[in-house]
Amino acid sequence: MRFAAFLLAVLLTPAPQTLRASVTTWVDAHQKPIVQELVQLLSIPNVAADAANIRRNADRLQQMLAARGFAAELLETTGNPLVYGELRVPGATRTLLFYCHYDGQPVDAAAWKQPSPFTPVLRRGRLEEQPETLDPASVDRFQPDWRIYARSASDDKSPIVAILAALDALKGSRTPATSNVRIVLDGEEEASSPSLVPAIARYRDRFQADLMVIFDGPIHSSGRPTVAFGARGIVTADLTVFGPTSGVHSGNYGNWIPNPAQRLASLLASMKDDDGRVTVEGFYDGIAPLTAEEQAAMNAVPDDGDRMLRAFGVAAPERAFPRLQQALQYPTLNVRGLVSSHVGAGARTIIPDRATAALDLRLVKETAPHDMLRKLRAHIEKQGFHLVDDAPDAATRAQYSRIASLTVSGPSMRAFRTASTDPQVRALVNAIEGVYGATPVQLRTLGGTVPISPFIEALGFPAVIVPLVNFDNNQHEENENLRLGAFFDGIVTVAAILTM
Amino acid sequence: MRFAAFLLAVLLTPAPQTLRASVTTWVDAHQKPIVQELVQLLSIPNVAADAANIRRNADRLQQMLAARGFAAELLETTGNPLVYGELRVPGATRTLLFYCHYDGQPVDAAAWKQPSPFTPVLRRGRLEEQPETLDPASVDRFQPDWRIYARSASDDKSPIVAILAALDALKGSRTPATSNVRIVLDGEEEASSPSLVPAIARYRDRFQADLMVIFDGPIHSSGRPTVAFGARGIVTADLTVFGPTSGVHSGNYGNWIPNPAQRLASLLASMKDDDGRVTVEGFYDGIAPLTAEEQAAMNAVPDDGDRMLRAFGVAAPERAFPRLQQALQYPTLNVRGLVSSHVGAGARTIIPDRATAALDLRLVKETAPHDMLRKLRAHIEKQGFHLVDDAPDAATRAQYSRIASLTVSGPSMRAFRTASTDPQVRALVNAIEGVYGATPVQLRTLGGTVPISPFIEALGFPAVIVPLVNFDNNQHEENENLRLGAFFDGIVTVAAILTM
Repeated sequence: MRFAAFLLAVLLTPAPQTLRASVTTWVDAHQKPIVQELVQLLSIPNVAADAANIRRNADRLQQMLAARGFAAELLETTGNPLVYGELRVPGATRTLLFYCHYDGQPVDAAAWKQPSPFTPVLRRGRLEEQPETLDPASVDRFQPDWRIYARSASDDKSPIVAILAALDALKGSRTPATSNVRIVLDGEEEASSPSLVPAIARYRDRFQADLMVIFDGPIHSSGRPTVAFGARGIVTADLTVFGPTSGVHSGNYGNWIPNPAQRLASLLASMKDDDGRVTVEGFYDGIAPLTAEEQAAMNAVPDDGDRMLRAFGVAAPERAFPRLQQALQYPTLNVRGLVSSHVGAGARTIIPDRATAALDLRLVKETAPHDMLRKLRAHIEKQGFHLVDDAPDAATRAQYSRIASLTVSGPSMRAFRTASTDPQVRALVNAIEGVYGATPVQLRTLGGTVPISPFIEALGFPAVIVPLVNFDNNQHEENENLRLGAFFDGIVTVAAILTM
Repeated sequence: MRFAAFLLAVLLTPAPQTLRASVTTWVDAHQKPIVQELVQLLSIPNVAADAANIRRNADRLQQMLAARGFAAELLETTGNPLVYGELRVPGATRTLLFYCHYDGQPVDAAAWKQPSPFTPVLRRGRLEEQPETLDPASVDRFQPDWRIYARSASDDKSPIVAILAALDALKGSRTPATSNVRIVLDGEEEASSPSLVPAIARYRDRFQADLMVIFDGPIHSSGRPTVAFGARGIVTADLTVFGPTSGVHSGNYGNWIPNPAQRLASLLASMKDDDGRVTVEGFYDGIAPLTAEEQAAMNAVPDDGDRMLRAFGVAAPERAFPRLQQALQYPTLNVRGLVSSHVGAGARTIIPDRATAALDLRLVKETAPHDMLRKLRAHIEKQGFHLVDDAPDAATRAQYSRIASLTVSGPSMRAFRTASTDPQVRALVNAIEGVYGATPVQLRTLGGTVPISPFIEALGFPAVIVPLVNFDNNQHEENENLRLGAFFDGIVTVAAILTM
């Protein structure tokens, strides 16, 4: 019986190029209900702290899953509920765990060029080009360049609708999925997903799969389908160098009382060479040179580095990392802020009492947060500083001529990176390549950090990120938007994965 | 006739120790009117911007001078009037130009522990020890430890009253002055004396003298009579290193887009060695090694370095300048403020768009402001930076990988330093030594900057600073005060100078 179903599935699975055509045809014919379902979902406010509306989103999503035959439920957690669904496919030999999130970034409604971030607006192009604005409900046919403006239009509600549309399209074109599908929709991603890892203890069985597919983030700026095999981790810390108990007159004591801002500058300078390479001992330990294959894969990423530099107003990148994709393979030491006394109108002629640098370290799989902090501390001590946890007391001040503190300033997050050679990963990449007739952009790692990293690590099976939305979507900012062409293509991409 | 007057003066001049006794006796007997004159003067508000009250001060001061036989007048300027007086002494072979200022720092009345900074309060000790408060008008005898609290009690109205009391005391004890006295009272010192140098063109003849004596600032913390032969100059500038046009995501671009805060840190670090010595080429050019005499004079200054360091909460001074007086003989490069993006709650994980250090350079006589700025610019360029005057445009950004600006951020001021071997200076020091039976604290230069420097330079004759008030006077702050013991001693010091 199971073999018969499998045979049927194999026979019914169309050639990849045919799949693209059939899904596209189906989507063309069903644009209106697809967009309508998205617009309705976007109309429910979804800031993680807004528990009542979050619950409305969760209920709606559960219904949407159930309507596609998922065994759907809400998994209660210590925070917002996870929306969960399972769809068993006869004869499937693999289970995929899809991850999206249904919460969105907090909104500053006044900054939006529309009455509300939760009343979606359709525009015939990018806001910046001042296109005509349309009521999405009044439209039957949508052009690829048109955009939906609303909070979570791209981050991350449209991928959920794309998954369901892909299932509908496969059903409509009588193309069965080839994998069991489990889906988990996070209601706290923009609040760092605090309840996700704790939920494993309670719901471990439901999360088991052969491959996790994270539908989040933007596709590559080239507009091509994109797969990312990892994301960097992060640790943030404030580095403070202490000077006199309070600021002292720079005339009366200049040259005599040491200046903490000058010493902070020297300390930061000691951490990096002129080419942008970190000189903290052991900073790059354990990171193997890239293999020829990895190097080739990175070279294949169609970054337009010159265009990006021009856009940022920067003449040249760090000499140690001339190519962006290469730069992302290594941990960073980044000064994200500096403060000592005042600059500008409030500046006073003093030797300041302290100077602080806010640092963030982006991490790769080989560099764990606590280990990197340990190395940074060792470096600071090697420069002659006595490290304290709090502001030094009089006895400490009398004993040590150089005093600093390094204080972790936010949640740390490990990196994740799945081997691109993993068979499930290869199957997914090949499926997308087959559908489009061209290999997707393959990123060994994203430069940024995703809060799902600890969840991936705790579950222990491979994970990839498959973004589905345009790169210029104004994610996290006002006027977040979704280019409908990217959205409709995304349905094709999901269909490819469902039939991989 | 002139010779006879001279002979009479010599015969009438008492031995120095006798002078101290006679002036002290006279002051003891006249404490009440002396303090009353001070209290009345302190009761007239004197912020430089308050033109009406400034005029009331000037009129009152002109009357006070006239009452002592000065040919007194108001010298109108482009700003507040200078109060000027001249007192000719029969047979005098020298003219002294006394300088004080009658304006005071702006006040934040709410921060004062008394109803008004312009209603002087008498306290039986330091405010911090919560002494009894008295109405000065109700007191006949004042103890040395008692203090008058009011704006300009020490900075700089009490020296004016001390000068007039010293003249009264000499007259009362039938001791003639030995120098002609010219006095100029500045009404804009706390506003950087903008009208003082321009006034020279109009009133040059009135300002001519053999020695300028500036009665301002606090005596040495040892409490001993003090003479300073100079003050450091200053130039302030903002140093900005430019990064991307706006902040970029530290994950997506970290390691690739150069970080301006890191580069500012390296640039600042390149300017100073680990011992606190400035490494900008030519920074110390022209500064001769101290002579054995100068070194000996500095060693004689009774600084309690260890106590000061303890008070500041600093274990050790800069290694290059272990002694405070030595440190003050050289120009400084001081980071008085740092800013790049945000630190603390507002910190974001970005590569900032720029980083700025607010600098002040204290100057010595050998180092002129424009020359030091030129050397600093050359150093920055040598580190590979292209210097711009304003935020760089797109073409500049595309051309130069390192871009910075150095912008002067306030009025520059040259240093002044009078040779301590000048005969007039020696006469003054000897006179004070004779009166007290001990050499005064002699400071080759003050570490700070006085706005009178350009006036001294423009006039071209020697100048010394003779402070008359306690060092813990809360100058420029709330609860400014005058220790009456220092004030009464100051009258003796002025008497010594008048009869030098």
